[in-house]
Amino acid sequence: MYNKAEPCAIIIFGATGDLTNRKLLPAFYKLEFDGLLHKDTKIIAFARKPKSNEQFRKEALASAKKFSKLRIKDDAWKKLASKIFYNRSEFQDIKGYHKLKSLITRICTKNAECNKIFYLAAPPGFFGAIIDNLKISRLNESSGWSRVVFEKPFGYDLESAKKLNETIKRDFNENQIYRIDHYLGKELVQNLLVLRFANSIFDPLWNKKHIDHVQITVAEESGVETRGNYYDKAGALRDMVQNHMMQLVALTAMEPCVKPDADDISEEKVKVLRSIRPFASKDADEISARGQYVSGTVNGKKIKAYRDEENVAKNSDTETFIALKLNIDNWRWANVPFYLRTGKRLRERVAEINIVFKQNPEILFSSNASGIEPNMLIIRIQPEEGISLQFAAKVPGRKITIDNVRMDFCHECRFGPNTPDAYERLLYDAMVGDRTLFTSWDMVEHSWELADKISKGWKHGKILYYKPGTWGPKEADKLIEKDGRKWYEPQKPYYSALLGK
Amino acid sequence: MYNKAEPCAIIIFGATGDLTNRKLLPAFYKLEFDGLLHKDTKIIAFARKPKSNEQFRKEALASAKKFSKLRIKDDAWKKLASKIFYNRSEFQDIKGYHKLKSLITRICTKNAECNKIFYLAAPPGFFGAIIDNLKISRLNESSGWSRVVFEKPFGYDLESAKKLNETIKRDFNENQIYRIDHYLGKELVQNLLVLRFANSIFDPLWNKKHIDHVQITVAEESGVETRGNYYDKAGALRDMVQNHMMQLVALTAMEPCVKPDADDISEEKVKVLRSIRPFASKDADEISARGQYVSGTVNGKKIKAYRDEENVAKNSDTETFIALKLNIDNWRWANVPFYLRTGKRLRERVAEINIVFKQNPEILFSSNASGIEPNMLIIRIQPEEGISLQFAAKVPGRKITIDNVRMDFCHECRFGPNTPDAYERLLYDAMVGDRTLFTSWDMVEHSWELADKISKGWKHGKILYYKPGTWGPKEADKLIEKDGRKWYEPQKPYYSALLGK
Repeated sequence: MYNKAEPCAIIIFGATGDLTNRKLLPAFYKLEFDGLLHKDTKIIAFARKPKSNEQFRKEALASAKKFSKLRIKDDAWKKLASKIFYNRSEFQDIKGYHKLKSLITRICTKNAECNKIFYLAAPPGFFGAIIDNLKISRLNESSGWSRVVFEKPFGYDLESAKKLNETIKRDFNENQIYRIDHYLGKELVQNLLVLRFANSIFDPLWNKKHIDHVQITVAEESGVETRGNYYDKAGALRDMVQNHMMQLVALTAMEPCVKPDADDISEEKVKVLRSIRPFASKDADEISARGQYVSGTVNGKKIKAYRDEENVAKNSDTETFIALKLNIDNWRWANVPFYLRTGKRLRERVAEINIVFKQNPEILFSSNASGIEPNMLIIRIQPEEGISLQFAAKVPGRKITIDNVRMDFCHECRFGPNTPDAYERLLYDAMVGDRTLFTSWDMVEHSWELADKISKGWKHGKILYYKPGTWGPKEADKLIEKDGRKWYEPQKPYYSALLGK
Repeated sequence: MYNKAEPCAIIIFGATGDLTNRKLLPAFYKLEFDGLLHKDTKIIAFARKPKSNEQFRKEALASAKKFSKLRIKDDAWKKLASKIFYNRSEFQDIKGYHKLKSLITRICTKNAECNKIFYLAAPPGFFGAIIDNLKISRLNESSGWSRVVFEKPFGYDLESAKKLNETIKRDFNENQIYRIDHYLGKELVQNLLVLRFANSIFDPLWNKKHIDHVQITVAEESGVETRGNYYDKAGALRDMVQNHMMQLVALTAMEPCVKPDADDISEEKVKVLRSIRPFASKDADEISARGQYVSGTVNGKKIKAYRDEENVAKNSDTETFIALKLNIDNWRWANVPFYLRTGKRLRERVAEINIVFKQNPEILFSSNASGIEPNMLIIRIQPEEGISLQFAAKVPGRKITIDNVRMDFCHECRFGPNTPDAYERLLYDAMVGDRTLFTSWDMVEHSWELADKISKGWKHGKILYYKPGTWGPKEADKLIEKDGRKWYEPQKPYYSALLGK
């Protein structure tokens, strides 16, 4: 069994927002339910609206009920609720921080070391004020350790990211900073390094000698929904590629690290990003295709154009889709391109890494092998998490006819449905001080360099359009087809029948 | 679609026996049902009991109904029945052959080329008489081609096998001889070469650099049943190892052939047998363990000892189990032992080839990997045909814990349940003249050399005993454990839930 987390106070700035309701409260409940929260844990909501502890706890219960995968049980909830407190304040108001300090001193008395996690769930524009007020009130200097946790957007570009980082660094060292990329908390993403380095059969194949190229697809079926305000400024490049997809590239491509800990893994991941073949901004359209969804009909349902979504500019040029080709010019990956694509309103919701192997010489079974695809190792991150290997097998019958078949590893069939949610995992790790699944500044910096160069190059190009329910604009197909390759359509694994999905 | 087989008369010597009823008639029915029998096909039963055509057809229908996986439909059966004839005769009686010749001439008139397949389903002791009478009656010299088909036992040892072969060769050339090893007709066995040579990922791993050893298990849950008479003279070595298991070894180990046809495949398979490390007969007990089942209780059911089975000598020393270690001293397999085991009254009915890969150095995830087995590729020949790959994955949760998991390819889920039975395939191949899935004399010869050396060595040793429902005598475990390895227990693939088995 796992150890309980260390006792600490988690102060959530912006605790009445979506993140707290949808992710953090269900995660805290699960941790409590699993007995992983220390009895002296305190969860302090820091927000603007006037509310009593009782009132906030009631609302928290409603959120937990609405968003938790578990049924909320009375006794576990009571335990958790007794740990929750509400601290009303504006983010800019120093008085609120003094009040917070008194609250912490009061409720943490039993626990000599008053450890603190400052969870910045507020908009990034407030980070400076929060950090400054933490310093003025000397909240981060009191006894025990202090950590700061926050999520993307880690800025809007390299410059703003640097500013944001400098703001945080005024009062926190890198090893106190926990930047959440929730993709790193996903089980199948965590499995990547184990798959590669704990298995003797994959390691010898994992290089330019045997791999033809890598495809990474992170597709959403949904549109921008309620996030128009944020998304219309960000777009797919900043929302998905700069963070999640670059993490997937780095984990797929990295060399074995000295130790599987935060710093060593980060070091190897950064090396991957540093090895990406440089390109001039003006060539951005050569290595990428971006698109925006127009209106259409999917399964008989009318779908709005992106520009008609709530809080989106009527003349918006923001990309809701991007396909990108990257070359990693290092010893392992020379001439093995990585093709990425991500977008909203695509055919289906799916995230997959597809390792496409080189094909055998057409000897022995060539005449029987028309339509045979290369061998592929497919890491399916969501939905129906699993790992599949596509290979060629003989079709039953009296001639040798060969077809593509798959071996599938069904994660849920093997380990059950209740794998920890990314936030459970990441909150717990923040409480025990394990930074392995958090993003280092170096990663952020290098991926912004890449994203900036692409978005700069796009300034002169034109956005392409695609119908909802497709795999994006035709140019995304051309991007890979001009190399004599093609996108492989994600397949529902046959074990989905076992899952009743 | 497949072409129809060539028109021919199939003469079955010993057509009232088990083989005809259980295997050949259902196979002919399936071929008829699939439209693969030429309309001018004739099936002539040659047997001792007095019977009319009508009577034999009626009995044949009963057998087809009893042993076919398909429901017998009237119209398909009528078509088949009209092709069936009965020719009463003793095997030694030349008059029966003249009668046969007239029958063939009469019923084959429409078909200028009177092609003939002589299927020897009689006991091998009669082969000489049959072959001689075919010659005297000049049945095999008439127009059209002639082929002879028969099954194991291909003799009792090398000497008797040579005699049997010489008998057949009196009137048939090697390319007219179709030696059935029904294991070669099994879909997953046929898949072996495709798996190895049509997939770019397996080929680079398939050698001494990456494979630690190979395990082949062919286990039966049943006892000797009605075959005591034959089995007590043969034993597991002759009944299973000399033929089926040596074929599996050869297909697993062989080099790529020039073309995937009978002669080229046979050439490569024979090279494998020729590369088996020589051993002195006196060392037979060093590289093998043999056993005989005693009485016991399995799942609450009393099981007789082998010696108490029908038609088995009370003091029989015949082995019902054998485990064997072979080294293949060629470039690909140096120091990669092949461990074989087969027997009756074992834990379950299962046939598997298990390619066990070398383990990774214990770096990165060593401390999290206790109980981790090596990577394995498992080719499951029966039941629940399929291919599985065992590898290590992270167990969901907040620490890196690693466990063995499997990807599975479920043959039936992908291709449906009605894959051709081995006999359908082999009968069809005999009718179209494809010898790829038949055993060459060279294979027979070399595998008898091996079997003879072992059985000679056993003369001075003692038979071991094992309880029914186990994996054989303890010495079988010791055989592999003294090399620092162990037998891996066959696992029911999880997709068996999908098959309702």
